[in-house]
Formats: sequence, C-alpha cells, structure tokens
Amino acid sequence: MIDIDTHRRDLAIANRILAREDVVDHLGHISARHPEDPSRFLLSQSRSPELVTPSDIKEYDLAGTPTDGPPHPMYVERFIHAAIYRARPDVNSVAHAHAYDLLPFTVAYDAKLRAVVHPAYTIGTEAPVWDFRDRFPNGTPLVLDMTQGDDLAATLGQNSVALMRNHGFVVALDSVVSTIYASVYLKVNARVQSEAMRFGGDVSYLQPRELEAIDELYRNAPHTVGRAWEYWVRRADLNGM
Amino acid sequence: MIDIDTHRRDLAIANRILAREDVVDHLGHISARHPEDPSRFLLSQSRSPELVTPSDIKEYDLAGTPTDGPPHPMYVERFIHAAIYRARPDVNSVAHAHAYDLLPFTVAYDAKLRAVVHPAYTIGTEAPVWDFRDRFPNGTPLVLDMTQGDDLAATLGQNSVALMRNHGFVVALDSVVSTIYASVYLKVNARVQSEAMRFGGDVSYLQPRELEAIDELYRNAPHTVGRAWEYWVRRADLNGM
Amino acid sequence: MIDIDTHRRDLAIANRILAREDVVDHLGHISARHPEDPSRFLLSQSRSPELVTPSDIKEYDLAGTPTDGPPHPMYVERFIHAAIYRARPDVNSVAHAHAYDLLPFTVAYDAKLRAVVHPAYTIGTEAPVWDFRDRFPNGTPLVLDMTQGDDLAATLGQNSVALMRNHGFVVALDSVVSTIYASVYLKVNARVQSEAMRFGGDVSYLQPRELEAIDELYRNAPHTVGRAWEYWVRRADLNGM
Amino acid sequence: MIDIDTHRRDLAIANRILAREDVVDHLGHISARHPEDPSRFLLSQSRSPELVTPSDIKEYDLAGTPTDGPPHPMYVERFIHAAIYRARPDVNSVAHAHAYDLLPFTVAYDAKLRAVVHPAYTIGTEAPVWDFRDRFPNGTPLVLDMTQGDDLAATLGQNSVALMRNHGFVVALDSVVSTIYASVYLKVNARVQSEAMRFGGDVSYLQPRELEAIDELYRNAPHTVGRAWEYWVRRADLNGM
Repeated sequence: MIDIDTHRRDLAIANRILAREDVVDHLGHISARHPEDPSRFLLSQSRSPELVTPSDIKEYDLAGTPTDGPPHPMYVERFIHAAIYRARPDVNSVAHAHAYDLLPFTVAYDAKLRAVVHPAYTIGTEAPVWDFRDRFPNGTPLVLDMTQGDDLAATLGQNSVALMRNHGFVVALDSVVSTIYASVYLKVNARVQSEAMRFGGDVSYLQPRELEAIDELYRNAPHTVGRAWEYWVRRADLNGM
Repeated sequence: MIDIDTHRRDLAIANRILAREDVVDHLGHISARHPEDPSRFLLSQSRSPELVTPSDIKEYDLAGTPTDGPPHPMYVERFIHAAIYRARPDVNSVAHAHAYDLLPFTVAYDAKLRAVVHPAYTIGTEAPVWDFRDRFPNGTPLVLDMTQGDDLAATLGQNSVALMRNHGFVVALDSVVSTIYASVYLKVNARVQSEAMRFGGDVSYLQPRELEAIDELYRNAPHTVGRAWEYWVRRADLNGM
Repeated sequence: MIDIDTHRRDLAIANRILAREDVVDHLGHISARHPEDPSRFLLSQSRSPELVTPSDIKEYDLAGTPTDGPPHPMYVERFIHAAIYRARPDVNSVAHAHAYDLLPFTVAYDAKLRAVVHPAYTIGTEAPVWDFRDRFPNGTPLVLDMTQGDDLAATLGQNSVALMRNHGFVVALDSVVSTIYASVYLKVNARVQSEAMRFGGDVSYLQPRELEAIDELYRNAPHTVGRAWEYWVRRADLNGM
Repeated sequence: MIDIDTHRRDLAIANRILAREDVVDHLGHISARHPEDPSRFLLSQSRSPELVTPSDIKEYDLAGTPTDGPPHPMYVERFIHAAIYRARPDVNSVAHAHAYDLLPFTVAYDAKLRAVVHPAYTIGTEAPVWDFRDRFPNGTPLVLDMTQGDDLAATLGQNSVALMRNHGFVVALDSVVSTIYASVYLKVNARVQSEAMRFGGDVSYLQPRELEAIDELYRNAPHTVGRAWEYWVRRADLNGM
C-alpha cells in the first residue's frame, strides 16, 4: 500500500531543500507524479517553496486542473508540470526554478550550458533552450497555458534539462531526489562553466561517452543520491512541518 | 478607519526585509506615503534598516521636514523621498539603497541597466541615471537638499527605477510591497545582466511589449506579491519588534 | 599510548570543518594515516562530510580495502587516499574535494593554478593537473580503482596539491590540520587568482624562493595553524558528535 | 578618568565585527593606540579575530614589544601597527586584513584601487601599494620586523589606506570605528570597482574635490558612523565575551 502522506511530506521537504540550496527564491516549484495514478501529479498550492508544508500539496490532472478539495491559489505555471508528465511517461518529478547562477545562460544568446562537472551529467552535451519568441510572438517568458507547456515539453524532448529564455530552467527526472540532485548541480555547473569560459581559452566539456559512463556509475551507486538526501534534509529549514 | 500603527509596523518590517535580502547594509531606507494625508510620508529616524522598530518611524512633510514629536536624528538623504512624493502623486513608497550587485551599473559609464528577467520588469527598457556632476558640479553623489531631490525626481520622470551615479538607486512604486519586490529583483537583474554581458555576445533584453504584458500579469495576480511578502517576513529578523 | 578515539574524533571534526568552510558539499572526503600502523588509514564510511561522526570513521589498507568491522557503504573514490599513502610515506592526511571556486581551474585548459597569496603557499609555482583522458580514454573524471589512484599519485609526485580535470583537487600533507589549511586557502587562492587574471594585465605570482621562505615561516610558527584550528572548530557545526 | 576596560572591550568587539563582516578570516588584526599613553597600543594576543575577548588584549610599545604581563603568543606582524603609530601621531587605530574581494588588487599589477562609492572615500584617488620586492628582495609579502614595518609606513605616508603586494591591506585612522568603517567599505569598493572595470568602458572614479566634500560630510555627521557601530554590534557574534 502506498502511503500518500509520506509522498506529500517528502515533496514538502523537497521544496524546503531547493530553498536552502539557493535553487529557488520566493519563486519556483517542484512536483511529483502521483504514485498511484500516473494521470495526476502532486504540487504545492501557490506558496514560496521555503514555506511549503504537506497540507499545501494538492493534486492536479495532466491538463493542470486541480482534482481535489476546495479552490486554492495556484501557481500560474503549473502547466509546465502537466505538459511534461503528459509527454514523458518516464518522468516522475519536475522542477522549475530561476537559480541566479543559471539565469545568465538564459539571457546570453551565445552561452550554451554544457556539462563540465560529473554531478551535473544530466545536463548532457548541451541543454536545449525554449525561447518564447520563437512560437509565441505575443507571449512572455512564462508558460501560462497548456499550449505553451506542450511547446516547452517538445523543446525538452528526451533531455533531462531545458532552459527557458529570460526565465529559468526545467528539470525532469525519474524521482524527486534525482530532480533535486540535477537542479542543485545544474546551478553549480553554470557557475563553474561561466567562470571557466571567462579565462578565454578552450574549456573541457564532458563528452557523450563520458556522460554515459557517469550515468551508469550513478545508477550503480544509489547510495550516492541517498547520501545527498540525508545531507540536504539535515540542512533544510523544516520549521512548521 | 486607517490603523496608522499597522502602517508603522509594516514599514519597520519592510526595513528588516531589505536588510535580510541584502538590498541595504547599514545604509539605505524605505518610506511610505502617509495613508491619511498625501502631503506627508513615513520614514524611520536615522537608524540602520536591520534595527528599525515601529517607534523609529517618523512623519515628514514633502519638504523633508519632520512634522511630529521631538527632534530626532534624520537621514541626510530624506529629500529623495520628499521630492519623489511631491512629483509623483501615484507613488506611495520609495526605497533608496546601495545593493552591491547594482553598484557597478552606477560606476561604469557604458553599462545600462535593462530588464532581463521578468520579476524585474519594473526596470523597464533602460533605467535612467542621475549624475550629480551634470547639474551640481560642486556636489557629491548624495542628495542633500530639495533642489537635488527635485533634480533626481526629474530624472526619474515616470519611471519606477532610477540609478544614481557612484551611489545607488531609487525605486518608486504604488505600495511598500511592490517597492520591496522591485528593489530585490533590481539587484538580481543587475547580477544576471552583468554576468550575461561578460559572455561577450548578444544579450536578450525584454522588449516594451513584453514588459507591458508582464506588468499586466502581475496586476492580475496580486497573490504573487502577497506570496513574496509571506516569504520575506518569515525570513526577516524581527527581533526587538 | 596513542588514543585512537581522539584521532577518530579529530577526523570527524575535520570533515565538519571542510563543510563549514565551503570546501566540500555533500561530496568530498578527508582521511588520516593510522597513527600506529602506516599501512592503514582512517576514512569515513560513505556519508556527507557535514554529518560525519567518530563512529563513521573506518580503517582501510593501502589497497583501499576495509580492514575492520562489518561491511559498510564506502566512498567509491577511496583509492585516491590509498594510492597517495602508498606512494608518499611523508603524507599523513589526504583531502579530496570539489570546492566551487577551484573547479574552473580544472575545466579551463589554459588556467594554471599558482600561489598568489601566502597562506596558499602549498600550491607551489603551479599545481599539476591529472587528466583522466591522458591514460584512461574509456574512463571518467573519477578515480575508481587503484590503477587510476596510482596514476593520480604519480601526477601528484612530490607536490602537496594536484588538480583533477573536470573534477576537483587532492591535497596531501603531513597532518590533518595542515591538509585543512591547504584546502581552505587553495580555494581562496583560486578565487583571487581568477579575479586578478581577469583584469587582463600581469599577475604577481609567488616565486620559488618566496614560497620556500613562507614555508619556513609556517614551520617556525606552529601557533598559526593551531590558531586556525581553534577558529574552525568554533565555527563548525558539531551537532550530533 | 579613562576606563581602559571599556577600551579593551570595544577593541574585542571590533575584532568580532571584522570577522562578521568578512573583512578578516582566521587571519587579520585591529589595534588601538593606548588612550592614556600614545607610546603604547592595544592589540590582541595571537588569536583569530572572531574569538578575541577583552582578556586577550595586550599592550605593546612602538617597537612591537609587549609591555605588560607574562609572555603570550604574538601576531608575527604586530610591527605593522607599531610602525604606523610611530610614524603617524594622528592615527589612533590600525587594521590589517586579507579581505578576499580586495586581494585581486594586490595581485594584478595593473589594477589600482580607487574610490568609486562614497562610503569608501578614505581610499582616496588611488591607494599606494607596498611591494616587498622593491626593498626586500629576500623577503616575503609579510611584515616581520620594524624595518619592514617602517617601510610600509613610508609607503602609506599620509594616506588612510595602503595595499600590500600579494598580501592584503592596512587602514590607519583616528578611531576604531572609523577604521572598521574604512575596512568594510574598502572591501565593498574593491568588489564594485572590479565588476565595473570588467564592463570594459570608462569607470567613474570619485575626484579629489568630491572626496574632500564627502570627508567633510562625514565629519559633520558623526551620527552616521555611530549608526554603523550600532548595526555592526547587533550583527556580530559576541559569544564568550
């Protein structure tokens, strides 16, 4: 029997972790596919991640419509999550955030985010960029409906990471902890890569074979991610939970 | 009936928030137009924002002269607030600060602060710069009287943000929470924009139509700013209040 | 009589210090040669350094095989330590970490880490870089067996510091406190050197004679390192120890 | 009657403030001329500033020789203080530190530290740099005796700030609080100036007349520095005092 309360609680903790690790500020969110019904997902009502509690976690369907309880304030960008869960059956958790170290890569046209350190291998050889201006000339950098969400999901394709022009990023992976891991090291990689690029010479990017080998290492060492979770939980502010 | 004590308390909290979010250090201040009398405004006596309490909040007229109580130490730059309230009836809160990430834009002649991320839309397409040397060749970067305050207000014009050469910035908006929001993301935008510019290629600046659309989004989603306030209050150090 | 419990406790504290001083995040480790048996060394079981307690400290031989107690989760890169202790009888403590300020030097081919400030004199005139691609074309940036560990140790040679391409660094010195000292100031040096290089002109690197003189100063002033230890212990989070 | 205990306590607090504001790490020190005897000065025994208590404060003469109590561990660079007090009767407090944001200016030959923001006006139009290699070809970046101290004091001249090649800075002013103020904003100025320089265009440096006007403003507004002191004391970790 699945204990949905544990899932709600873990997702609330995930919100606190992203806040503590400077991935989100008052904006940003992380969701999980419903453990019993793949056509639904769990996401906080509209609240800053640092303050989310288990009772804030609500259920939505894959059109971004709430499926339980009374009306509640909702994140305007919940369609990001809905569209990715619909397009990617392998994905069980999605994060969207505006980590400050990452944002320059969404603003500078020539800067391509590429994995340079092994814990950020989920970036791959180059993160695709969803540019709202390509398809929504009257739009904004935000994803405000399913049409825009589907377009972002198409840009993401089979990648684990996509950037959003003038806005932020999405990470989509098979578990909440993997999504946190990728989000944290996406930020670290951005910082390291931009500093390395500024030396002006060649930069050592991780190559496809290397990224595959690192991916295999992580799959064979589940303890590494568990160790990270233990660490993040200890550091996070869990007041009020 | 307006509860002036609540306004004093909120303004004291606003001071604490700006300190916690690294917008101000021991310098900087935020004011609010008096809720009952538009010809007066509320501002702390001279004290570092991180330490301001409701009893520090004093009343001034639109010449920067205190209108209540016994003499108290005053911010030498209170004229910034007085002049902007006089020039801009639509403005209900003014902040002035020296956030470190923003200061390079006040010092480098060629760097123009422009909105690159949506929460900083209040910057507009380019923040005007008040340069004391243009009109006050015997002056300093500070605003020390109403003449200088009026000149700064003229540079601000109908904008929400203006920079001050070798000094800092002013934000002027319709509420305390909006002024905090703009001040925090002004700083984030400065950091992101300067990093993006250093990649050397083209930078994606938000365009006028896009800024208008984002402005409309915020006006239609008052919950977003309320969520930010809840987050900032939780994080701020309210000791002694 | 050697009190092994004190050594375990000091090594656990060393882990906490590296976490507090931003040398490690959830990854990274520090070891000590066994005080009674130079063919063994002490290292935590696989756990994030910020959380290590004395009971996490295990014993390994110079092939990286645990020599005591029941099976436990192990750091996959414990071979770094084993190989360096085997190659360098003068070394009594080894640290391996991914400090963010240092990582750009492992990623930018043209950036050579060189000592620019005196507390980082252990870097020497240029830190060697172990590049996994040179000898292990099917490898990753990680050290996963003794062959790779030996190769890293060969790159380290008689130096106190070596970088690892796309990965991090190793420090190998005669005591735990010296290893911490070198690790902390390696990070500071990296930050200062990269900022200095970006001014575009000549950089003042410390010269061999100067580095020798500084080394002699430190050897004659053991109080300096003791003062640092007192400082780091005060700052570290020792909860749960 | 002068209460020397209050002076000792204030100087201990000054040490804590410099630690809290990231001017010093485990290294660095601040002293005060003895209030009753200008031929002596107060300085902590060798201890990290973050941990200094009033009982650590010792007395030295202007040759750097301790004048009271039993032997104690001493800062090797106490001669910096002795030499400056001897050369500059107007100086009542000296700080020496290695703030990380300042260090690049001591390492990059072409980077000249110049005041760009008004609270850092004590830097002046360009801070002189003491380069140990000019006069002590067999020396190190450190000041280890009175000859080197006198040479540094000569480089300082009538300035309030001097940099030390590959090492750090000294600030020398008329009071402890002014010395802290200058040290904190020296660091801020360094950060802002280096970021501004990297935009590549002209930088607005404060001019001599402007610096004089700002100096006069500060002299006429003693409350500003008192407000800073109140702020720093509130923030500092005073545990164990």
